[in-house]
Amino acid sequence: MTHILITGAAGMIGRKLTEHLVSQGGLNGKSIERLTLLDVVAPPQPAGFAGKIDTIAADLSSPGEAVKAVAERPETIFHLAGVVSGEAEVDFDKGYRVNLDGMRCLLEAIRATGNGYRPKLVYTSSIAVFGAPFPPSIADEFHLTPLTSYGTQKAIGELLLADYTRRGLCEGIGIRLPTIVVRPGKPNRAASGFFSGIIREPLAGLEATLPVPETVVHTHASPRAAVGFLIHAAGLARDKLGARINLSMPGVCCTVAQQIAALRRIAGEAVAARIRRETDPLVARIVEGWPQRIDARRARDLGFEAESTFEEIVRIHIDEDRGGSFVA
Amino acid sequence: MTHILITGAAGMIGRKLTEHLVSQGGLNGKSIERLTLLDVVAPPQPAGFAGKIDTIAADLSSPGEAVKAVAERPETIFHLAGVVSGEAEVDFDKGYRVNLDGMRCLLEAIRATGNGYRPKLVYTSSIAVFGAPFPPSIADEFHLTPLTSYGTQKAIGELLLADYTRRGLCEGIGIRLPTIVVRPGKPNRAASGFFSGIIREPLAGLEATLPVPETVVHTHASPRAAVGFLIHAAGLARDKLGARINLSMPGVCCTVAQQIAALRRIAGEAVAARIRRETDPLVARIVEGWPQRIDARRARDLGFEAESTFEEIVRIHIDEDRGGSFVA
Repeated sequence: MTHILITGAAGMIGRKLTEHLVSQGGLNGKSIERLTLLDVVAPPQPAGFAGKIDTIAADLSSPGEAVKAVAERPETIFHLAGVVSGEAEVDFDKGYRVNLDGMRCLLEAIRATGNGYRPKLVYTSSIAVFGAPFPPSIADEFHLTPLTSYGTQKAIGELLLADYTRRGLCEGIGIRLPTIVVRPGKPNRAASGFFSGIIREPLAGLEATLPVPETVVHTHASPRAAVGFLIHAAGLARDKLGARINLSMPGVCCTVAQQIAALRRIAGEAVAARIRRETDPLVARIVEGWPQRIDARRARDLGFEAESTFEEIVRIHIDEDRGGSFVA
Repeated sequence: MTHILITGAAGMIGRKLTEHLVSQGGLNGKSIERLTLLDVVAPPQPAGFAGKIDTIAADLSSPGEAVKAVAERPETIFHLAGVVSGEAEVDFDKGYRVNLDGMRCLLEAIRATGNGYRPKLVYTSSIAVFGAPFPPSIADEFHLTPLTSYGTQKAIGELLLADYTRRGLCEGIGIRLPTIVVRPGKPNRAASGFFSGIIREPLAGLEATLPVPETVVHTHASPRAAVGFLIHAAGLARDKLGARINLSMPGVCCTVAQQIAALRRIAGEAVAARIRRETDPLVARIVEGWPQRIDARRARDLGFEAESTFEEIVRIHIDEDRGGSFVA
């Protein structure tokens, strides 16, 4: 029997993770007795779960909120809450408050709980912790020199997580997600949003804007793979992980042109033709500073798995978010 | 004409830097009109300075103090204030408050000043940002995986400095000091204190304790070199530095046995015999996780200079802190 807390539970990955946990009813061999779902807006109540569900609308960086969130001592915490890259770049204070102070408040709340409380804390970091110039492939020992405030905040979160873990205050693992595509629903304010938009919108019969050149190279994984990373991270034994608890996740590395070619192969020319090229200097500048190819050797060795082609990623979107069809 | 703020001005490097600036009367070709010296205890008033001197007793992490410290818009800030490694490991809250919150308060105070205020901010980081296991020599692109809270706090300071600099809020440069030896005066609570103690105490006729094996390899520079790094950093043009503003400084890499051999060559066997071996598990564990050899290629290319032998370092201590003599 176990109790799980998900922060950022109303977000895309939070909802997919919740659905997955509810459908499985368990996590790494333990049945889920209780789910606490937290976000700045109350997360939706998932259907079909036999255990107890609490939904909380709270900002972890507000005084006392993090303490309340861990008061019932959840054994596993998925800390997904955060302000996305575009927003953190535009709103300096909000980015630092939510992404840095929120993380610190959560860690301090865990520490303050005491009495042997030492939860598994799975933290979603991002490949935005890396900054150009890059080697052809970014190895696990490459330094973090982020070129956005978002990447800076995520890198600081990794450092805090490692120190609190080293001191025995939690069992942390940080997973650096590649760009997650295809995001269902509306565009969000992440600078990486177009990587999803250029697949999702055309499949829905809508026009999409491509704000960067087609030669941009990037690493992607599906929402399904992201949920898989989170579940696998939660089950990874501490002794397998060692002292270096922050890991780059694997993904499919390809150009935007290859993304579009995959869409064309699956859905046809008419669908691919719905992509309009219009460079956005802010997005182009942010994306230019992002890593391209991620080595992710440690993660692969530790059993983390992603897709192997971009076609797979497109098909997962069509199956999972579009009921198997698209607007031809 | 220029105004300089030194935080941590009462510390060893702060005092040596102040003396140097007063003796030169200028910094990088500009004469010093005003010096503001800040520390948690009021720093000593240096003699022989023609300009205005303010000494401030303040903790930068206390509300309002950082804003007051930069209110007169110093053009160059040397941010040396901090809790040392041993203390930050023992007192978790104090380490985070002084080393992390203090840095953040200073950066926020600079940002709040506004009106085009964009000081040169020289930040003393440390090679404690690195954590074992290490390659034979640590290159400039090696990742930061600190194994102490002190190293964690310094690494976070580097990330913040880079982000505030990128956003045009200050002109930051972070310099990762190797262990500075020989520290004059009393031992402090740094875990690295013995590296100085085993030279300083025997030269003063006193017994010193060596808490680690003689095979320990480490990188050292003199206080004189450290002051040189700070001055050089303050004068380095932004375009030479690029986006990666945090740099490992050069130093002399040697074993503890080689340190002792240098002492013996300069001061004789009787002096070297004053070192008593007594392992301290806490210190030994901390030092084990520290880097050994630092590549520092970028810093050397940018003109940062350290000693080339440990004998030089011992002689600088005898000249600068002991008036040229020692207790044979």
